[in-house]
Amino acid sequence: MVRGNISDLTLRRLPKYLHFLLRLQKNNVEYTSASEISRHLEVHHTQVRKDLAFTGVRGVPKRGHRVNDLIEALQKFLNWDVTLYAILIGVGNFGSAILNYRGFESSGIQIVAALDNDPQKIGKDFNRIKVFSMEKLPGLMATLNPQIGIITTPKDVAQKTTDALTKNGIKGIWNFTPTALEVPDDIIVENVDIYPSLAVLVRKINEKITKDN
Amino acid sequence: MVRGNISDLTLRRLPKYLHFLLRLQKNNVEYTSASEISRHLEVHHTQVRKDLAFTGVRGVPKRGHRVNDLIEALQKFLNWDVTLYAILIGVGNFGSAILNYRGFESSGIQIVAALDNDPQKIGKDFNRIKVFSMEKLPGLMATLNPQIGIITTPKDVAQKTTDALTKNGIKGIWNFTPTALEVPDDIIVENVDIYPSLAVLVRKINEKITKDN
Repeated sequence: MVRGNISDLTLRRLPKYLHFLLRLQKNNVEYTSASEISRHLEVHHTQVRKDLAFTGVRGVPKRGHRVNDLIEALQKFLNWDVTLYAILIGVGNFGSAILNYRGFESSGIQIVAALDNDPQKIGKDFNRIKVFSMEKLPGLMATLNPQIGIITTPKDVAQKTTDALTKNGIKGIWNFTPTALEVPDDIIVENVDIYPSLAVLVRKINEKITKDN
Repeated sequence: MVRGNISDLTLRRLPKYLHFLLRLQKNNVEYTSASEISRHLEVHHTQVRKDLAFTGVRGVPKRGHRVNDLIEALQKFLNWDVTLYAILIGVGNFGSAILNYRGFESSGIQIVAALDNDPQKIGKDFNRIKVFSMEKLPGLMATLNPQIGIITTPKDVAQKTTDALTKNGIKGIWNFTPTALEVPDDIIVENVDIYPSLAVLVRKINEKITKDN
């Protein structure tokens, strides 16, 4: 399998292919093609072909690629066959939704603990993940040794939370707040910000309404 | 204010600027500059300058841009001063988190109803938004006339839900499932997919671990 030299843009498209392939697998479809994937996911077929080349899976003439082979290769490529440990900080609406969500287990991470400073939440558990008080952060980091910190705190404490995580040896941050976090150079940050897509949606609909009237 | 001809990429950055400016406003900061914004948000300063040009707000020599003027202009530009109506389908973990979240009211949309087919949830309300049975969809669309459908259903019913929404006159879909939705050409879809950012995070951390060892 070809490794390295993959751009972030390519990497970001792979989970989309994987989810589509898992759907085909569930429907007992045995073969698929770059053009079929292209049609369903609205990615140009030459792009799909280029992206799939990274998996090293070769197509069979007239039948295409074996769905199971592509799934296996993509899961390996995305490192979703290895599990990283994560702790989640901030058990509010989004935090508890993430704790209760069962889709991550097959996606490379396992959440091993949650933290919050609300006494009402401390000691409870969500989807068998226990909530600890914020003071336990250094101890949890030392014993569980998680690589990823998931930040679902209110936005005004997101930076302070990040500082505490980096001070205690976290390797990467998955940031669900709209705060732009400042971190040392060797810490990886990925942001899930829903506002950019809301901005595009709202603007396009307003343009459409103006045009239709 | 300059209108139109703004790329989606520029548009997607504007909420980030707006959130940063609102933070400055909260701390009673009166003026800011493209280079200050650039430093905090890790966007190149020539890019920030270009993006801010769309707002039409001019800087004052040696002081920069007035924070309040930029906020007002960006909110207008993003149409966050007008309110679109939305209905949400699927009151699961993420669905109820979105209903309970109070940050959207100043961001261009108001959720006016929620739908689910679980009898346990029907009739309840979240953050004063009532949950109706799925059968009420056509009636709710006709009376409330929402422009946006927010899809937080399980992924395997996301397409069916989308079909029902488009049949009943929705203008845009905000899709929180990893399903690639198929819609008629005149329907706007924006996807919030957390898996692409997870893919990048997991891969970079695994690369880092391999390198460190």
